[in-house]
Amino acid sequence: MATIHWQEIVAQKRKEQAASIPKDWILPNLPSKDTLNVIDFPEKCGLLTAKEIEITNTEVDVILKKLANGIWSSVEVTTAFSKRAIIAHQLVNCLTEIFIDRALARAAELDKHLKTTGKVVGPLHGLPISLKDQVNIKGIDSTMGYVTWASKPAAENAVLANILEACGAVLYVKTNVPQTLMWGETFNHIFGRTTNPYNRSLTPGGSSGGEGALIALKGSPIGVGSDLGGSVRIPAAFNGLYGLRGSYGRVPYAGCVNSLEGQDSIPSVLGPLTNSIGAIKAFLKSVLSQKPWLHDPLVVRKPWNEDEYKLADHGNGTQLCFAIMWDDGHTVPHPPVRRGLEATKQALLAAGHRVIDWTPLAHAEAFQVAGTIFGAGAREDFRVTTAPSGEPIITTMDLSVDTPGVSPLPPDAEPFFSPPPDGLSAYELWQAQRRKRDYRQAYLDHWNATVEVTGTGRPVDAIISPCAAFTARPHGSSKNPGYTVVWNVLDYASLVIPTGLSVDPVLDVPKPAHDFLTGPDKVNYEIYAPADFKYAPIAIQVTGRTLEEEAVIAMGEIVDAALKNNLKTCN
Amino acid sequence: MATIHWQEIVAQKRKEQAASIPKDWILPNLPSKDTLNVIDFPEKCGLLTAKEIEITNTEVDVILKKLANGIWSSVEVTTAFSKRAIIAHQLVNCLTEIFIDRALARAAELDKHLKTTGKVVGPLHGLPISLKDQVNIKGIDSTMGYVTWASKPAAENAVLANILEACGAVLYVKTNVPQTLMWGETFNHIFGRTTNPYNRSLTPGGSSGGEGALIALKGSPIGVGSDLGGSVRIPAAFNGLYGLRGSYGRVPYAGCVNSLEGQDSIPSVLGPLTNSIGAIKAFLKSVLSQKPWLHDPLVVRKPWNEDEYKLADHGNGTQLCFAIMWDDGHTVPHPPVRRGLEATKQALLAAGHRVIDWTPLAHAEAFQVAGTIFGAGAREDFRVTTAPSGEPIITTMDLSVDTPGVSPLPPDAEPFFSPPPDGLSAYELWQAQRRKRDYRQAYLDHWNATVEVTGTGRPVDAIISPCAAFTARPHGSSKNPGYTVVWNVLDYASLVIPTGLSVDPVLDVPKPAHDFLTGPDKVNYEIYAPADFKYAPIAIQVTGRTLEEEAVIAMGEIVDAALKNNLKTCN
Repeated sequence: MATIHWQEIVAQKRKEQAASIPKDWILPNLPSKDTLNVIDFPEKCGLLTAKEIEITNTEVDVILKKLANGIWSSVEVTTAFSKRAIIAHQLVNCLTEIFIDRALARAAELDKHLKTTGKVVGPLHGLPISLKDQVNIKGIDSTMGYVTWASKPAAENAVLANILEACGAVLYVKTNVPQTLMWGETFNHIFGRTTNPYNRSLTPGGSSGGEGALIALKGSPIGVGSDLGGSVRIPAAFNGLYGLRGSYGRVPYAGCVNSLEGQDSIPSVLGPLTNSIGAIKAFLKSVLSQKPWLHDPLVVRKPWNEDEYKLADHGNGTQLCFAIMWDDGHTVPHPPVRRGLEATKQALLAAGHRVIDWTPLAHAEAFQVAGTIFGAGAREDFRVTTAPSGEPIITTMDLSVDTPGVSPLPPDAEPFFSPPPDGLSAYELWQAQRRKRDYRQAYLDHWNATVEVTGTGRPVDAIISPCAAFTARPHGSSKNPGYTVVWNVLDYASLVIPTGLSVDPVLDVPKPAHDFLTGPDKVNYEIYAPADFKYAPIAIQVTGRTLEEEAVIAMGEIVDAALKNNLKTCN
Repeated sequence: MATIHWQEIVAQKRKEQAASIPKDWILPNLPSKDTLNVIDFPEKCGLLTAKEIEITNTEVDVILKKLANGIWSSVEVTTAFSKRAIIAHQLVNCLTEIFIDRALARAAELDKHLKTTGKVVGPLHGLPISLKDQVNIKGIDSTMGYVTWASKPAAENAVLANILEACGAVLYVKTNVPQTLMWGETFNHIFGRTTNPYNRSLTPGGSSGGEGALIALKGSPIGVGSDLGGSVRIPAAFNGLYGLRGSYGRVPYAGCVNSLEGQDSIPSVLGPLTNSIGAIKAFLKSVLSQKPWLHDPLVVRKPWNEDEYKLADHGNGTQLCFAIMWDDGHTVPHPPVRRGLEATKQALLAAGHRVIDWTPLAHAEAFQVAGTIFGAGAREDFRVTTAPSGEPIITTMDLSVDTPGVSPLPPDAEPFFSPPPDGLSAYELWQAQRRKRDYRQAYLDHWNATVEVTGTGRPVDAIISPCAAFTARPHGSSKNPGYTVVWNVLDYASLVIPTGLSVDPVLDVPKPAHDFLTGPDKVNYEIYAPADFKYAPIAIQVTGRTLEEEAVIAMGEIVDAALKNNLKTCN
């Protein structure tokens, strides 16, 4: 039997992807490769009608109302987002699987249903939703960037795909990821590299980088990403979006493909990325309305709790006490990240809330524990998955690997994730998991102790922190996800909110050197040159306790409104 | 530095335990060693007053009311249960740590509080509660049967101990366990063997065997056990008690000592053993009233749900459909276990419910997966824990090890738990955990599919099954916990209910040999001789879905009432 070389599989898969793009939507007038910021291009390129621009620029809450009232048809809305998604793809290479015909057929059925019965199918009736490549859809590949998995269409829908369809959503595209998923950037041998629409010399983040880039360009109203160490939140932050990492088992994961299968100590979770906070709420509330615990055994039996959303556990939200973590004790964030936190503080104080400083507790321990747990069997997992195709395991996100072929890890590299070659024993893994448990206990006690300093009679209501020590970075340089992975280790509900600000070389000048907290802190300080980060959005994280998604969304709405109000006042 | 031999540590610890027993309660008239059934002895021995007998024979719900109304004082109630516990200990060797002075001082404080304020401290005001040796109490050892851990008093209370005290409970004794906890019997080098009060030639089960024996003798109204593979439910069943294995993280475990620390894929859970189903509800509702998720990071943020208790998800309980699992496809239960299931079926039909047969789904897979996960690092865990003292790792529960010293594993033994000597790699462990996840998915789908056959419009409401393929067994012979561990793997809420029946050599004659399902099935069939199991209680399990504790308790009340009603009718 002749073996097909992995590059031939890639070529075939790319040909199939090209063929799945509607011919009429292929643009002759793409901006040159040197054009960094392409965020406004979709509206200027001439492919979208005025109505399609209106639809794709509308917030999800409003789209859903117009769909439910029959003012906009699902075919119209699906067509608009599909076109804009294809434009986005030509700009930043964000898609993997494209199945617009199927989506339009489904949209037409939904329109017919509404017309015939006068009723919506569910709370997301007619809304297109994009999915990270991991989420299985029957008959469609989930390569997850692995050549091995090419041309192996899924036998069944993932539970979440079924639930979204039961809610009335229209599935139409899947989005790009890095090979192994264990990177904060987005590149693999099959689909290549996704870039950041605000500045294409920057990464959109990862591993849900395809979603991040697509939604920033408004090629999707809501996308589903996954987050093991920041993979929803990093691309949300890098692309100026809202993104929710819910607690373990709040959103059904069953039936998705994944990396590190069987690692269930710090599980990956699925979560939405969107352009409005209302869409985060609509997504979670809709998913929970379908009782996902009846379909995925790992989902927590906890319906949407309206009392918690009304902040019953937080004094009904009248005066909250937020704590801002200016740095994590390991790496001081770049000036624009600091500016985002300052703007948030000012906005919250103006809105009448209390703001105190958050003292980070041993975040290096969280990062080490996560690396040990994820790394315990990772190399073997990667080997087993790549062996059948012979594709190389990617060891750097440098631009040098843009054409297939893999550079060795440069000697001075600080890799995003570097698991031990021989893995760990199960007993050693247990010891790391024990450390994790002890860390969670210590952090809980630490949080509870803030009741003494908030002045509200309650401990801190939510923590506001950077999403990373940097905004979107040049390709190949995305490092330590310490600011996100800590909440995965602790299983805290965490929501990324864009501040409405972006990197401005005039405002965000380098600061004088500080006493460096660590070696990586020094490196992070030294690489900051404002011009390299131009246009990158600035975001923050709002973090609550485990299984407190409803309250975190409500507090996120308060933060979001305060930021918007303040921006208005300042302008 | 001279090394103290582990047997000297044992001798010292035993001396301390003997000294902790109030002298006046040491009985001169203990039954002879040949007296098998000692269940009635406490009331006949002359130590208890009539009122103490009345108190200790009263159901928890009633005791709590009398305590709250000041009709009985906590000192009275604590004294009564303490005396009866010390009697029980002299009969079946069920206690480890005994701290009655401390308990009586606490009871006096509670009495004073009620007198002064007119208010109870909490929902368990004044009630003594016994704890499995694992649950830390500040200043008291938690040896867990390990010589290594002798004379190392706990620095802090476990979260559950704090919560029970916040509820007003009085802690007074801790109870015996097997070394490593990985046995369905109760024996260790320090405290020796616990026996079954219904028949002392039988095991009380394990690993919460001390609790089982103590509560059967009414030396405690509620005891806390732990359950990794059946360790609450086996002793509950073997001693004719109610016992709840709640879902992972429903009851706080933080601050307890444990075996296999860091194994968090199939976590052990804490749960109550009691003499009445009302006490199960009182315990869980009380614990949840204290918002344990604010104190233990692994506790699910889910308060007591009264709607679920009212069976909102089960047609409000008007007509339920139970499914009976007559055997698990691996081992056919002994005749008395079958008789218990038949009595339950008859009782439920008489109460107007539907009863169908449950088809077990690949239970051998559950048992193998659990063994692989628990075994992955177990030997190293045992080695590390026993090495400092040099105590031998116990390899059999045979009577031959009653005097310190350890028999080698007999060549024909089928050990309860036999982990691989060199453990597994983390990657291999992940593969077992992946199998577990797939099994949980398959079982959920299997359960959902019963909607087609119940006739209620819902899938089966609860599964009724044996607690083991046997009732309490002669010491050293307790085997395969397949009937309990399957629900740990699936994380289903499971409640043991005594049928009110016990082994009767006249009724429970051996059946003709059947076509054996497996080798162990044949062995199990052949060892059954009714005379050996005389007086052993017969119990069943009522099992619901993950995090459905409220509904399982409510359905348990229905089963319990039906059984009691039927017994009454038959007598």
